Amino acid sequence: MTGRTVRDIGEFGLIKALREALPSGARGGRGIELGIGDDAAAWRPSEGESELVTTDSLVEGVHFRLEWTDWLSLGYKALAVNISDIAAMGGVPRLALISLGLTGDEQVANLTEMYQGIGDAAVRFGVVVVGGDVVRSPEEMAIHVTVIGETRGGQYLTRSGARPGDLISVSGTLGAAAAGLALLQLSLDDARRQTTTAEVLIGAHLRPEPRVDLGALLLKSGATAAMDLSDGLYGDLQKILSASDVSGSVDLALVPVAAAVRALFKDEYLAMATRGGEDYELLFTISPDLFEEIGREADAVGAQVTAIGEVVEKSADGPELIVRDMEGVERVENTGAFDHFRRV
Amino acid sequence: MTGRTVRDIGEFGLIKALREALPSGARGGRGIELGIGDDAAAWRPSEGESELVTTDSLVEGVHFRLEWTDWLSLGYKALAVNISDIAAMGGVPRLALISLGLTGDEQVANLTEMYQGIGDAAVRFGVVVVGGDVVRSPEEMAIHVTVIGETRGGQYLTRSGARPGDLISVSGTLGAAAAGLALLQLSLDDARRQTTTAEVLIGAHLRPEPRVDLGALLLKSGATAAMDLSDGLYGDLQKILSASDVSGSVDLALVPVAAAVRALFKDEYLAMATRGGEDYELLFTISPDLFEEIGREADAVGAQVTAIGEVVEKSADGPELIVRDMEGVERVENTGAFDHFRRV
Repeated sequence: MTGRTVRDIGEFGLIKALREALPSGARGGRGIELGIGDDAAAWRPSEGESELVTTDSLVEGVHFRLEWTDWLSLGYKALAVNISDIAAMGGVPRLALISLGLTGDEQVANLTEMYQGIGDAAVRFGVVVVGGDVVRSPEEMAIHVTVIGETRGGQYLTRSGARPGDLISVSGTLGAAAAGLALLQLSLDDARRQTTTAEVLIGAHLRPEPRVDLGALLLKSGATAAMDLSDGLYGDLQKILSASDVSGSVDLALVPVAAAVRALFKDEYLAMATRGGEDYELLFTISPDLFEEIGREADAVGAQVTAIGEVVEKSADGPELIVRDMEGVERVENTGAFDHFRRV
Repeated sequence: MTGRTVRDIGEFGLIKALREALPSGARGGRGIELGIGDDAAAWRPSEGESELVTTDSLVEGVHFRLEWTDWLSLGYKALAVNISDIAAMGGVPRLALISLGLTGDEQVANLTEMYQGIGDAAVRFGVVVVGGDVVRSPEEMAIHVTVIGETRGGQYLTRSGARPGDLISVSGTLGAAAAGLALLQLSLDDARRQTTTAEVLIGAHLRPEPRVDLGALLLKSGATAAMDLSDGLYGDLQKILSASDVSGSVDLALVPVAAAVRALFKDEYLAMATRGGEDYELLFTISPDLFEEIGREADAVGAQVTAIGEVVEKSADGPELIVRDMEGVERVENTGAFDHFRRV
């Protein structure tokens, strides 16, 4: 049989094709407020507040390598990246289900250590692990996590509310996780691996911190759109612009990059901050007058926020991301987000 | 590094070890009514009814073979087995999240066909697919499904309520799915593969039917414990006995086996009905006076129910399953449920 393969159409083409393969009755209906396509789905049970549900998986050899991570961090990260999706909508994470695909050759002590890492993240963010599944996966280990959260007052942030005039903003600094990954790929005797800075960056890659408190603040403060940065600033911002049907311009000189990343990667730091994934900072849009106020309150929850550009009307060609580089030259960026299949 | 592996301690030993690795705060707490260990977990959001959540995965080469299943059936089954967990608690399935692990070489047309099968099951049982994740899985394809359901009136059935004097009962007939799997393993020119009966049995294996209406009826009618039969009657019944801290006796002569299974597998049919998995019928316990009434009502929802034994006080050694064979000889059955790791 011949035909297009997943590799041919890529991750995002596939998701669209799969969504369209479902009958409309299986895509929405009573109580479903937000289906496939945002950080999490939202639904309203028969009684009570809305809820958020999300799922995200880590596969050995694709999302992690056992020689690069310790087991505690692996468990912590597997839950944290899902909590981050709830945080990006301003929700409160509540429950987790964990499904493990195991070859059978794993050391039990390693897996219980991984669960201690899951437990660390769970306790820290108020999540309860209520169940899961263990299945055999002959070739590689995988961790599939689903998190259910509650909305605050029935409200939540989506990707589709950005309006012309809003500021485009990010929390924290960008590029540390990509720099950490790059350090792990270096030879152990590379001088850059010996620095204490390297440990911090590797830690950012291995143990990302979801921005739950900041997400709640953004929701309360009137942010118009938000998502977490998992696939890189450029790619993820394009998802907000596309969902909101607007264009956006970003000034590279304003993008906050950790000093450690600049110091160790003089040539690559901007690429790491704009195309590197897994920082799990929040990317959001908000009107300029509300931004000032949020800056002060964000400090109180341990997050700094930086405006890096603004939302504008879409162009004749549709939503576009315009990047002004360090020399002040503007160009349209359209590489899209990291695609796990197309760039293999 | 040496130590016990997953293969050494098996699936159930592992689940226990992982559960214990979690701090208590990550295992239960506000709103969590039922955590790890039943068909689904139950929780009570801040406001409103209780909810049920469950997750179940199918891995290529372990749970399915692409040369044996069509893609529609594969999608249908992946959702149906999760719906079955909600049915076993008497709940109403509502939402599904689907996470695919793909090698990248899959035909898109096959995957959209699989989603049509998911859509068939979703529409049939009133489930909405609200999201998911697509990840690369270098070696084999996997489908991970999470289903969220609602309870009826805040009530649900568990595995732990069986009481001495209750009848042990099952819905439908047992062994068809195991017979279907055995037929798929036969050479295509085996005479048994040529029968129309074979098609029915293979269909039972490829497209199981979750018993949602019956689950609701059991809940309403006062069943004391219930679960769905995924790992075989003996193994699954031992889970109810253990969770309820009781013993049980089963009379083999009463176990309902489909005539087709008896006809094609004269020597193996009893083993298929008692140890074969994936029938997804409901196994439940109920007081004798309520059983009679339920028999009539079950007919109305298209399910027949059969009493096959009774719950008794546990023995000095703890919960035991006593089986009376076709010659009337009693013995203690203690093989346990199918373990995906230990019997590799």
